[in-house]
Amino acid sequence: MDRTEDSLRKALADRQAAVDAQGNAVRALKAGKAPKPEIDAAIKALNDLKIEKADVEKQLQAAVSGGSGDGALTREAFRHTVVNTLERRLFYIPSFKIYRGVAGLYDYGPPGCAVKSNVLAYWRQHFVHEENMLEVDCPCVTPEIVLKASGHVDKFTDLMVKDEKTGTCYRADHLLKDFCNEKLQKDLSISAEKAAELKLILATLDDLSPDALGAKIKEYGITAPDTKNPLSDPYPFNLMFQTSIGPSGLLPGYMRPETAQGIFVNFKDLYYYNGNKLPFAAAQIGQAFRNEISPRQGLLRVREFTLAEIEHFVDPEDKNHAKFSEVADLEFLMFPREQQMSGQSAILTQLGEAVSKGTVNNATLGYFIGRVYLFLTRLGIDKDRLRFRQHLANEMAHYAADCWDAEIECSYGWIECVGIADRSAYDLKAHTEKSGVALVAHEKFAEPREVEKLVIVPNKKELGLAFKGNQKMVVESLEAMGEEEALQLKAALESKGDAEFLVCAMGKSVIIKDNMVKISKQKIRENQRVFTPSVIEPSFGIGRIIYCLFEHSFYTRPSKAGDEQLNVFRFPPLVAPIKCTVFPLIQKPEYESVAQLISRSLTVAGVSHKIDITGNTIGKRYARTDELGVPFAITVDSQVDVTIRERDSKDQVRVSVGEGGN
Amino acid sequence: MDRTEDSLRKALADRQAAVDAQGNAVRALKAGKAPKPEIDAAIKALNDLKIEKADVEKQLQAAVSGGSGDGALTREAFRHTVVNTLERRLFYIPSFKIYRGVAGLYDYGPPGCAVKSNVLAYWRQHFVHEENMLEVDCPCVTPEIVLKASGHVDKFTDLMVKDEKTGTCYRADHLLKDFCNEKLQKDLSISAEKAAELKLILATLDDLSPDALGAKIKEYGITAPDTKNPLSDPYPFNLMFQTSIGPSGLLPGYMRPETAQGIFVNFKDLYYYNGNKLPFAAAQIGQAFRNEISPRQGLLRVREFTLAEIEHFVDPEDKNHAKFSEVADLEFLMFPREQQMSGQSAILTQLGEAVSKGTVNNATLGYFIGRVYLFLTRLGIDKDRLRFRQHLANEMAHYAADCWDAEIECSYGWIECVGIADRSAYDLKAHTEKSGVALVAHEKFAEPREVEKLVIVPNKKELGLAFKGNQKMVVESLEAMGEEEALQLKAALESKGDAEFLVCAMGKSVIIKDNMVKISKQKIRENQRVFTPSVIEPSFGIGRIIYCLFEHSFYTRPSKAGDEQLNVFRFPPLVAPIKCTVFPLIQKPEYESVAQLISRSLTVAGVSHKIDITGNTIGKRYARTDELGVPFAITVDSQVDVTIRERDSKDQVRVSVGEGGN
Repeated sequence: MDRTEDSLRKALADRQAAVDAQGNAVRALKAGKAPKPEIDAAIKALNDLKIEKADVEKQLQAAVSGGSGDGALTREAFRHTVVNTLERRLFYIPSFKIYRGVAGLYDYGPPGCAVKSNVLAYWRQHFVHEENMLEVDCPCVTPEIVLKASGHVDKFTDLMVKDEKTGTCYRADHLLKDFCNEKLQKDLSISAEKAAELKLILATLDDLSPDALGAKIKEYGITAPDTKNPLSDPYPFNLMFQTSIGPSGLLPGYMRPETAQGIFVNFKDLYYYNGNKLPFAAAQIGQAFRNEISPRQGLLRVREFTLAEIEHFVDPEDKNHAKFSEVADLEFLMFPREQQMSGQSAILTQLGEAVSKGTVNNATLGYFIGRVYLFLTRLGIDKDRLRFRQHLANEMAHYAADCWDAEIECSYGWIECVGIADRSAYDLKAHTEKSGVALVAHEKFAEPREVEKLVIVPNKKELGLAFKGNQKMVVESLEAMGEEEALQLKAALESKGDAEFLVCAMGKSVIIKDNMVKISKQKIRENQRVFTPSVIEPSFGIGRIIYCLFEHSFYTRPSKAGDEQLNVFRFPPLVAPIKCTVFPLIQKPEYESVAQLISRSLTVAGVSHKIDITGNTIGKRYARTDELGVPFAITVDSQVDVTIRERDSKDQVRVSVGEGGN
Repeated sequence: MDRTEDSLRKALADRQAAVDAQGNAVRALKAGKAPKPEIDAAIKALNDLKIEKADVEKQLQAAVSGGSGDGALTREAFRHTVVNTLERRLFYIPSFKIYRGVAGLYDYGPPGCAVKSNVLAYWRQHFVHEENMLEVDCPCVTPEIVLKASGHVDKFTDLMVKDEKTGTCYRADHLLKDFCNEKLQKDLSISAEKAAELKLILATLDDLSPDALGAKIKEYGITAPDTKNPLSDPYPFNLMFQTSIGPSGLLPGYMRPETAQGIFVNFKDLYYYNGNKLPFAAAQIGQAFRNEISPRQGLLRVREFTLAEIEHFVDPEDKNHAKFSEVADLEFLMFPREQQMSGQSAILTQLGEAVSKGTVNNATLGYFIGRVYLFLTRLGIDKDRLRFRQHLANEMAHYAADCWDAEIECSYGWIECVGIADRSAYDLKAHTEKSGVALVAHEKFAEPREVEKLVIVPNKKELGLAFKGNQKMVVESLEAMGEEEALQLKAALESKGDAEFLVCAMGKSVIIKDNMVKISKQKIRENQRVFTPSVIEPSFGIGRIIYCLFEHSFYTRPSKAGDEQLNVFRFPPLVAPIKCTVFPLIQKPEYESVAQLISRSLTVAGVSHKIDITGNTIGKRYARTDELGVPFAITVDSQVDVTIRERDSKDQVRVSVGEGGN
């Protein structure tokens, strides 16, 4: 695609040059009063060139808007229809609407809330119960120290710019992104080089420093979208909602930006609960908060959302998974790093192969990718619009071993809905360091093992004589040496009798003599190995999954009379907000009592349902129920038999009332 | 009980006086060198009086500590055992424990989280599904305007005092309450009058003004509990966690103190969703927040908790309930206002009678009381330690029509776990006024009705001539008159031709002449009645219910060898965190594969379970599983048959492996 677009931009520039040249030629002929047939021929040539140019322009337009010339438009029209239906039927509602709402906050109304509760129940069944995970439930209010350890206090920021006159705030990267996309899609006259530059910016947007981002905003003359006023330089804004715990005002706290930290700080207890055995997984469903600078994209970017997170703790030396074979044969769209870098598309891949080839770092990560695929497609996500995209090297945190996002395509493009990351030992180590509580696991050996260990014994007396008050700093620096550094020092001391040694805490090097430290490699017998487990974290944005599910489930079909388009959500029964509606065909006490009887049986069976006794035509009632995604409708048109209708096929079967009872 | 205590205090004072008098008599005899037999007789009489006094003292001690002399001690010891078990088995964990925790924040560990999720699932089944309620899910982050309208910004406060030297904060009413309780329970020497005074304070604690509370603290010489330093005067502290929405810092927000407001602000949409029909109920489960001054009582008073709330909207003129007959025959402990005022105890009452006698204000309120009773007892709450206590007049908000709390007795005393209040039209009116959006319902009349209405028509021209720029204010004041005021004005104008009239917006009275306004009563034909619905609100503190359930379910029994007491939670299967454990009797591959087979069948059937393949004795494994409240254990001791054991009876049945399969 990229290469087509590139050559089209070049072709367009050529055609434009040809048109310009021929235009000049025509003008020259006219000025020189050339013979009319000659002028006419030149004008015809000019027109042909213009047609050719228009043709290339059209192809380029199609290329930049993703396949079809009006793709973007169709997507927006589709979204408009879906969102209109969702809001009208109260799947969701902008929160605090009567007070004109707050950007980025939404309520789930009755059918939306039921869908959400079904999705969460299935998540719990599919992950927690089937995998015997340890589910926990921790508070949203979190003291600062926890989020200081996790890095959120210092690094959970977005770069912000302010309208210099009104003070309105914007996300700096969004403004630059919008500018680049707009230029690329609407300005066909830019050169292939310029287009390549803009695309590079889009690809590396997350890596730009505040200065680089500010420079680009200045270079392109980007102004405040609402007022066209100049913008401030970008500066970081922390995205956590801050508060204060207790009445003293002395204990700062935040609303958690993710649920994961609640699990990490409980690692020790959970490991004990699991019989001090690895691997095991803990899970949590709960609210998380992100004080977005300027939320947009409806349910996809909100200030409060439900996360469902799994932290699977595993021995870093053994990341196999006992049940991997159960998912190894699955085939779906994967989008590894290499494909992205070389401009290709996602490819249908067998999961087992992706793991054995090393495309996916390890089998545990692979197992969760497979389980996520099963979860999403069983909910009703279209498998052809679901891909697993590997993070590029520049996207991943420095400590991460590998990371794959389940991305779902919707009218907003490909949306990250689940992140599946191998975070190595980062989080447990950070909390160990900050809290002083060792969050580690033990592997007991069947019999003691001999291991070779580096032993560093500083001679405190000699060091004291030499460094007086700085002795402690020198001792600590010597003890903290890594293996390589220690062996170098040992070699230097043995050959020269002394060596220079950098003591960071003193900010300078000192001279260490061979009588000041003993460095040796010794064989030691150990009964166990103590290590920090790695964690593999599948993290689900429940609201995003639900929104994509809404789009994937939605379709329209003509009414019986053919005079209007009716909306349908094809939710599977698992997800449907109501499983069944019960309609007395006409308002008649006998039918209503049959309807009540059926309703009671359904209640006992735990099947959520609704009786509709309004006097509307049966067609109207079907249409209303289809628009809520109710899979089955029972129409009571006799006291003996009823009709059950399936939503998508509209197939009907007759069932005797007795059969359905309990 | 109260009267016994009162008379005992008086009896004790009498005995003390008698002891003192006899003591004086003995001393007088000794001083007067009376004959030895006489002195001995007097000493014997003194000793008898002392024994009598000690006996009364013991009775009084028993009376004040609730029945048995060491009741308080037993309760604390019981609580200690339960809490120890709960924390050891990770039912719950103090949050952020590795960072030394934060008061009032707790995590649910794996079994606690499972219990909570079962309780919520049953709540949803029992209330939302069985009653076809409209469930919604609104954010925790709430803009200030919403909570300004609801009254929380101004009135959701507790009175706080500060240690004048260290700055440590305490709840003023808690300090006074502790002082009174301590005095009443431990100081047996106080007079009956003093005891009555302290009890009056305890009964009216919620009504004390900051000044009155401060005066009592001074009068009794109450100091800071930790340091004995003097305390500041009490002042109100708002209990909401405050934050700021968006990057500008200009939109203050709070973490919601209840979920109800999210429902009220959506009334208009929900009423429409329900086909513009009353009654209907909306429901919401979610986190709520309360920045307690100094939390205590473990899970009972926390800073973040899960609420499940129902707002049942009803025509204020018809508070009957179609399904009341289904609960009318229930009998349970009710504690109406009169019983409380006259010092009696809760009495076994038939719900139908309580409603028909008017003890409970209306049938809808009664219906929910009955449904709450069924909900709690089916979860495993002991019906003999559950009572419905009516609010005293001074406890209720001024707008409330009636209010009953479901109180559960636990080691902390009687704890309010569910509040069931008829809040009349207060909330909807408050949001109507603040938002300008009419949150009202309509009753369409079958045929138009003639109603008499007051009509006020200001003569704008005359008013303009008289009041110039103030005309608008006068017009609005006239139009805003209530019926009585308007009729008085009308009478005055008719008799005197003019009248004084207060225009609040101008801050003064003006003279209105009879040509400036026409006031009349007219008969108008109306097609509908427009009114603000009343709301009946059952509000469940899920964490409190769960904690009481833990206490009610807990018991101990001797081990088989009789050498130790084993802990058991008698959770019903509905609530139990794990429904079933599967034990291979000994570690043997054949047994383990049968266990795996059973496990797979249970997974398919959706029964949460756990395999325990540790080499512990079967007795130890039963004990571990009883302590988690697992109702059934399947022991695999052959490849053909297995043993199923029930937790409480310890009954065992043999079942063939095939039977249980699917």
